[in-house]
Amino acid sequence: MRDIAVFSGSAHPELAAEVCAHLEVPLNPTRISRFANDCLEVQLQANCRERDVFLVQPLVVPVQEHLVELLMMCDAARGASAARITVVMPHYSYARSDKKDAPRISLGGRLVADLLVASGASRVLAMTLHSPQVHGFFSVPVDHLHALRELALHFRGYDLSRTTVVSPDLGNAKEAAAFARMLGAEVAAGAKQRFADDRVSISSVIGDIGGRDVIVLDDEIAKGSTVLELLARLREQGARSVRIACTHGLFAADALKRLSEQPDVLEIVCTNTVPIPVEHHTEKLRILSIAPALAEAMRRIHNGESVSALFDAP
Amino acid sequence: MRDIAVFSGSAHPELAAEVCAHLEVPLNPTRISRFANDCLEVQLQANCRERDVFLVQPLVVPVQEHLVELLMMCDAARGASAARITVVMPHYSYARSDKKDAPRISLGGRLVADLLVASGASRVLAMTLHSPQVHGFFSVPVDHLHALRELALHFRGYDLSRTTVVSPDLGNAKEAAAFARMLGAEVAAGAKQRFADDRVSISSVIGDIGGRDVIVLDDEIAKGSTVLELLARLREQGARSVRIACTHGLFAADALKRLSEQPDVLEIVCTNTVPIPVEHHTEKLRILSIAPALAEAMRRIHNGESVSALFDAP
Amino acid sequence: MRDIAVFSGSAHPELAAEVCAHLEVPLNPTRISRFANDCLEVQLQANCRERDVFLVQPLVVPVQEHLVELLMMCDAARGASAARITVVMPHYSYARSDKKDAPRISLGGRLVADLLVASGASRVLAMTLHSPQVHGFFSVPVDHLHALRELALHFRGYDLSRTTVVSPDLGNAKEAAAFARMLGAEVAAGAKQRFADDRVSISSVIGDIGGRDVIVLDDEIAKGSTVLELLARLREQGARSVRIACTHGLFAADALKRLSEQPDVLEIVCTNTVPIPVEHHTEKLRILSIAPALAEAMRRIHNGESVSALFDAP
Amino acid sequence: MRDIAVFSGSAHPELAAEVCAHLEVPLNPTRISRFANDCLEVQLQANCRERDVFLVQPLVVPVQEHLVELLMMCDAARGASAARITVVMPHYSYARSDKKDAPRISLGGRLVADLLVASGASRVLAMTLHSPQVHGFFSVPVDHLHALRELALHFRGYDLSRTTVVSPDLGNAKEAAAFARMLGAEVAAGAKQRFADDRVSISSVIGDIGGRDVIVLDDEIAKGSTVLELLARLREQGARSVRIACTHGLFAADALKRLSEQPDVLEIVCTNTVPIPVEHHTEKLRILSIAPALAEAMRRIHNGESVSALFDAP
Amino acid sequence: MRDIAVFSGSAHPELAAEVCAHLEVPLNPTRISRFANDCLEVQLQANCRERDVFLVQPLVVPVQEHLVELLMMCDAARGASAARITVVMPHYSYARSDKKDAPRISLGGRLVADLLVASGASRVLAMTLHSPQVHGFFSVPVDHLHALRELALHFRGYDLSRTTVVSPDLGNAKEAAAFARMLGAEVAAGAKQRFADDRVSISSVIGDIGGRDVIVLDDEIAKGSTVLELLARLREQGARSVRIACTHGLFAADALKRLSEQPDVLEIVCTNTVPIPVEHHTEKLRILSIAPALAEAMRRIHNGESVSALFDAP
Amino acid sequence: MRDIAVFSGSAHPELAAEVCAHLEVPLNPTRISRFANDCLEVQLQANCRERDVFLVQPLVVPVQEHLVELLMMCDAARGASAARITVVMPHYSYARSDKKDAPRISLGGRLVADLLVASGASRVLAMTLHSPQVHGFFSVPVDHLHALRELALHFRGYDLSRTTVVSPDLGNAKEAAAFARMLGAEVAAGAKQRFADDRVSISSVIGDIGGRDVIVLDDEIAKGSTVLELLARLREQGARSVRIACTHGLFAADALKRLSEQPDVLEIVCTNTVPIPVEHHTEKLRILSIAPALAEAMRRIHNGESVSALFDAP
Repeated sequence: MRDIAVFSGSAHPELAAEVCAHLEVPLNPTRISRFANDCLEVQLQANCRERDVFLVQPLVVPVQEHLVELLMMCDAARGASAARITVVMPHYSYARSDKKDAPRISLGGRLVADLLVASGASRVLAMTLHSPQVHGFFSVPVDHLHALRELALHFRGYDLSRTTVVSPDLGNAKEAAAFARMLGAEVAAGAKQRFADDRVSISSVIGDIGGRDVIVLDDEIAKGSTVLELLARLREQGARSVRIACTHGLFAADALKRLSEQPDVLEIVCTNTVPIPVEHHTEKLRILSIAPALAEAMRRIHNGESVSALFDAP
Repeated sequence: MRDIAVFSGSAHPELAAEVCAHLEVPLNPTRISRFANDCLEVQLQANCRERDVFLVQPLVVPVQEHLVELLMMCDAARGASAARITVVMPHYSYARSDKKDAPRISLGGRLVADLLVASGASRVLAMTLHSPQVHGFFSVPVDHLHALRELALHFRGYDLSRTTVVSPDLGNAKEAAAFARMLGAEVAAGAKQRFADDRVSISSVIGDIGGRDVIVLDDEIAKGSTVLELLARLREQGARSVRIACTHGLFAADALKRLSEQPDVLEIVCTNTVPIPVEHHTEKLRILSIAPALAEAMRRIHNGESVSALFDAP
Repeated sequence: MRDIAVFSGSAHPELAAEVCAHLEVPLNPTRISRFANDCLEVQLQANCRERDVFLVQPLVVPVQEHLVELLMMCDAARGASAARITVVMPHYSYARSDKKDAPRISLGGRLVADLLVASGASRVLAMTLHSPQVHGFFSVPVDHLHALRELALHFRGYDLSRTTVVSPDLGNAKEAAAFARMLGAEVAAGAKQRFADDRVSISSVIGDIGGRDVIVLDDEIAKGSTVLELLARLREQGARSVRIACTHGLFAADALKRLSEQPDVLEIVCTNTVPIPVEHHTEKLRILSIAPALAEAMRRIHNGESVSALFDAP
Repeated sequence: MRDIAVFSGSAHPELAAEVCAHLEVPLNPTRISRFANDCLEVQLQANCRERDVFLVQPLVVPVQEHLVELLMMCDAARGASAARITVVMPHYSYARSDKKDAPRISLGGRLVADLLVASGASRVLAMTLHSPQVHGFFSVPVDHLHALRELALHFRGYDLSRTTVVSPDLGNAKEAAAFARMLGAEVAAGAKQRFADDRVSISSVIGDIGGRDVIVLDDEIAKGSTVLELLARLREQGARSVRIACTHGLFAADALKRLSEQPDVLEIVCTNTVPIPVEHHTEKLRILSIAPALAEAMRRIHNGESVSALFDAP
Repeated sequence: MRDIAVFSGSAHPELAAEVCAHLEVPLNPTRISRFANDCLEVQLQANCRERDVFLVQPLVVPVQEHLVELLMMCDAARGASAARITVVMPHYSYARSDKKDAPRISLGGRLVADLLVASGASRVLAMTLHSPQVHGFFSVPVDHLHALRELALHFRGYDLSRTTVVSPDLGNAKEAAAFARMLGAEVAAGAKQRFADDRVSISSVIGDIGGRDVIVLDDEIAKGSTVLELLARLREQGARSVRIACTHGLFAADALKRLSEQPDVLEIVCTNTVPIPVEHHTEKLRILSIAPALAEAMRRIHNGESVSALFDAP
Repeated sequence: MRDIAVFSGSAHPELAAEVCAHLEVPLNPTRISRFANDCLEVQLQANCRERDVFLVQPLVVPVQEHLVELLMMCDAARGASAARITVVMPHYSYARSDKKDAPRISLGGRLVADLLVASGASRVLAMTLHSPQVHGFFSVPVDHLHALRELALHFRGYDLSRTTVVSPDLGNAKEAAAFARMLGAEVAAGAKQRFADDRVSISSVIGDIGGRDVIVLDDEIAKGSTVLELLARLREQGARSVRIACTHGLFAADALKRLSEQPDVLEIVCTNTVPIPVEHHTEKLRILSIAPALAEAMRRIHNGESVSALFDAP
């Protein structure tokens, strides 16, 4: 396999650049044109022939634009005779569409996986997928990294003697339990009920909260309404302090502002899998970089070394 | 094959409704949800099982949104055990991306065709594709209708004795010649040169223009800059009057306004393959409906009758 | 589509016969030969040509034998020109192999789904898959039934005023919460830790147990060691009574005997998705039949009616 | 990737040999046997295992024989574990079957592309395809060379001050315009009308012809009847001299003789993409070799270098 | 499924017409055009939409022409939305290319099967394939008829008390044994050695021949040299009389003449799976029609009835 | 291509170890777990990324277990990004299921080939397939070795002047004839009739047996009943001595014991393609090792050298 060639779509070029800096390779330019009829055209502006091509693109807002861009990047690389095409997708938003909970609905997580393969992707590097089963939606090899290590490193700087990790949702509780073990902490979970996309109700928190320093852990935070409701329950049950942690800081609308305004929230920690506009930053926000982890995984993929050590399931 | 079930995406529900009225079947509701993370989810809200499903969606602005919607509609119909899934795509914008005129570019026309098939489409009903070869990009059957008949019917209302049909581009001249034959008129063509997406130069018009009543015919008009430049050449060469005709009236930005403001343009005729906001309408605009043609084609597809008669190549 | 033709593999012919009785169609004979070299050969002994073929086979012990049998049944039906091949798989044991929790392991849930499709299956009727995401492993339509309705009907015969539904595992807690809502009961969950395949440790139960009538709910029970350990925790936390419920009663080895010997276990309830040898039955065992639900789903599939009503997510 | 291995079918071994001479690699022998029942069998008589295999075969008369031969060469190379199989197809006759201009006809251009891929072809090197859209018929990478550079080099030897490049057909006019730009000449086009396969009528030539030195440019000349009719129009409109140029000199029947007998035709220029029997040669015929261009493209493909520079769209 | 639509390629229209007469359906016209560049184009000249299409074409001389024709017929039917495409191929000449007896050779039997499927064939109706394993080369359902019944019916008109059925080749001996059982005769086989395509040597006949009435049975006879050599051995071993029987009478060159000239050959019996020019007929030739069997099989395929009864393995 | 990585399933680790010793590479460990629900999980316990992976597993008793194991090994290697996956299958038991001799039966030989490819196998190394056509069942390259060389080497140690090689079955007679030529011996064949799986009748032996030293040659011996019956015929026809040879010594039940007890059987020779439990060995058994041949083939496959020399068809 010849040299690495890294390209970025328009979703998160800063992350791609940071990854390339760690890899000590240039970030090749990509021309993305929009025609008068709103159609896109992608040109990869460096030779791909027999190269080991990596395409960096988290699926973030505007998701459909970034998805079609990514499919075209795959298609262009395939047509340009890339030896291998690895999609580096630090955030896979469609992974949440992973089960058929109503009749005749699309199953986005599987559909997008199939579209990527149909467009030429030969492997995927993903991070903290919404559920581990999403791995199986892809018919090509997937390397699945976690950011728990980065998050744990951050929290180990604090006194964790009275800490409880709380998952807002029973469905995410296994990961919270794993994180609690990494920190030597206890675990609890909200009994969440989702009525529709924008109405969530947490009736109670199962586990002991009174007098504890709570770390709320979720894989992603978008509107933040679930966390806000959880905060109400935590207060009722007498939590002493609260910190919020997630891998994917989507922070739609004024989510960051609303969360930061909660007086008992000491800190909001996330990673840079998705870009967060500087104007949304607050004093309580801490952004950890996963570029070193992505770069190391890409280096190992290119060299044919095991990526397993990096993704020891938490 | 059981009953027909027609669904519309969000691109052009008025057209879908008009088609259903002609077919005398209900337009079934489609629920298209957008989650906080900008992902879409589609639910077809009527039974699809063993039904002959038609999904109506022209690929118009915002193209990427409407494309992903359409792919999800296909996926939902497939997962819901539709007997057959026909994509009714009166405008296929990506058909313009039909050749590889630079290295390492995406070939959108073929890619989107493959994505539709990968998502479950079992056939396609299209109208006035940018080039006839696009037909071959699909690995499933395509019925390809033309709107020349509707346009011809309209222009036959005028005195055509001194009429020349002018194609702005040599590449489209064959269709202009066919249209001229339908009207008993002459044909001419602009020698167009495209420097980049937004700079077009027509050096001359090949054919006799002096004293003629010109019908400019193109498959689609987006920004209108090509037509505007053609108008300058036509004036230089002494055209007596100008009417403009196209199938797909995309009319980006203020294209309609600018064209209508040309004093020697008597009329701008298009069809309703793409929706045109009422606030963009001008006095010179005439919109012809292709809903009857689409409905008739769908009826024949459902009944297994020949669609050929409808698409006699012009 | 022509008539229904139902065949059973050797895994659970009693269930197939019961389903056929409800459908009022004959169960067609299947010849399964084993050659001297241990290879299998399957012959479907009734005409399949243009028929709507249903193949009933839960993947139960010996799983590999039953899997290969089922693949051959699909292959034979395909070669015999079946119009459609629906695999009726009331228990899909490989669904538990749904995530990649170690490097270089097989992902059985996805692999077997692909093998079924490669062998000719055109759709699947499944019941209580280990996780809802398994649905997405199949590239063909899946109808996914639940047995919670049958289980709820049974338990509504009891006084449920002090009942708590307990999930042995946080990962299954969502279904337990749904079941609790169906019964108007509370919910709790064991914080389970799996060290290896045969050593499981439940450190605690999150939620209130003291003085409650507990219904332990799991999707399946195999060796029963998890449940036994949960029982110890429940006793420590002062449960008043315990009933055990699951959809798939695999009951490996002497699991049923060991569970039945627990004096505080009042009842063990499961369905007949997997055959339970009569000699393993105990006085505390109650087996509910899901044959009526399967038959109704098959009837609707054949007639092209919606199956959705049957699988309203709990 | 290991060494290059070049094989030739029976269509044009001279070209293959010339290409190999430029590449300084041997032309490996191919055994093509015909059995008594008229079936073919192909044996590639050199090791292909893990080699970079190139199969040289223009699809020329007898087309069906050469096509099946080529499919078998692909199949043999695949079965022999070639690392990559590149079909070098300097003339793709089926490219003319690129649109569906009648109901229920075969679409040969797409079909043959699919057959090549189904037989194992992993990429294609083509030259002057009938329309650029044919590129999109292939689901594998295509390198598409043009011979305009070779043709231009030849004509630059003449005084081009009064030259007009004439396309016999509006559909080919874009390429004629490009060629005219390369030569600093003007452009014109025949308004051709095809009534059936063997009756063509050119009603007029659009553009100025009087007193011009004309270069008639077409992608291929088969029967020559279109060119002959064009010559009549050119004479009527007062052309001063005529030269004829094309990439693919198919020259069916006595086409070369008839064209050469036209007194005002000074020269007939083509390339060696297809073999022209020596006995058909005339004094006016000039054959330019594209072997150097093919060899250079193959060298770049093998080395993973960009082929783009070679196919700068004219 | 709608009505049957039968089309014939140019290989054997007489057989197609005879089959249609038995089915009491019209033989629809097929237009097969050859362009000046030797490319073919096929148009099926009757509506195929949602029809049950049967394409009749034995792969006989010129095989490559007929093969490409057939592939195009499949493609045209698929593009025209046929509900099902059954290739009726009474003679599959490439079936002889069924094993890899040299390195790097094409495996025509499998390749052509894949090409048919890639072109749209959804099932195949074949007759007396060279080896039964060829069935497995197809990934679509195959109905495999035998002509032994027709042949047996013919020979039962003779006194068979001293008859031995002789297979020229050990490889075909199983079928000869089956035929012998049908006639109550004995069996023997030539120990054939094939040095190359056109040199065959039969060293001996294994089994008793002296004083026997021999029926030489082969699946096909092409050049007849094997049979001629066998005749020499039969004479040496004292055969009393010889009749020759085969399903596929290919009779290349003067094979029929040479065989008929053998004085001890009483009769040469074959079927009409391949056309035999009238001018090749000899007095000793008897041609049995398999049109009734094909028609009956097609009728059953269309009606979804079992074809098995027709192909009871001999 | 990077280094070789060899793994063995549980079918025949001794053979895998012997092959690795010849290749001078380690045999990497494979973890095969069986869960309480009888499902398997495979973990390849060495890095596969970009490696040239070989998976050694003959399909022997229990066949279904070993098949599913092998499919999972392929899946695990694919998911772990192996560069190439070669299945080394010294015995392919399902190859006997190679023809459709009854309606609606599974065609195991083709089905298992498809399953292997669906699971990720990129090539196959097989030995003495039941019929050469089985090669064509695979859509990936197959290297097909024969053990006749090893067997011939063994028998050349004897006086072969009066030797006749006897095939128990006409269907296998070609290979017997080839073996006879290698030994300079004569050939004969039993006229076998198979009534059902467990009742075989050999009516006679075609060829001269009286006073000959017979070598019975079959590709495999399972129950041995065919050979036993053949022995009876050989005695009747006056054979002087008998030796038995086969590639695959399956020896079901007490086959070895029963054959060894025949006083006129001097020797039973087979290879180690399948494991033979030591407790079944008898004094007359000779086991030849094909590990050197497999290792050499694997070395050549890895190095891209021709394997043809090794599989010169006998």
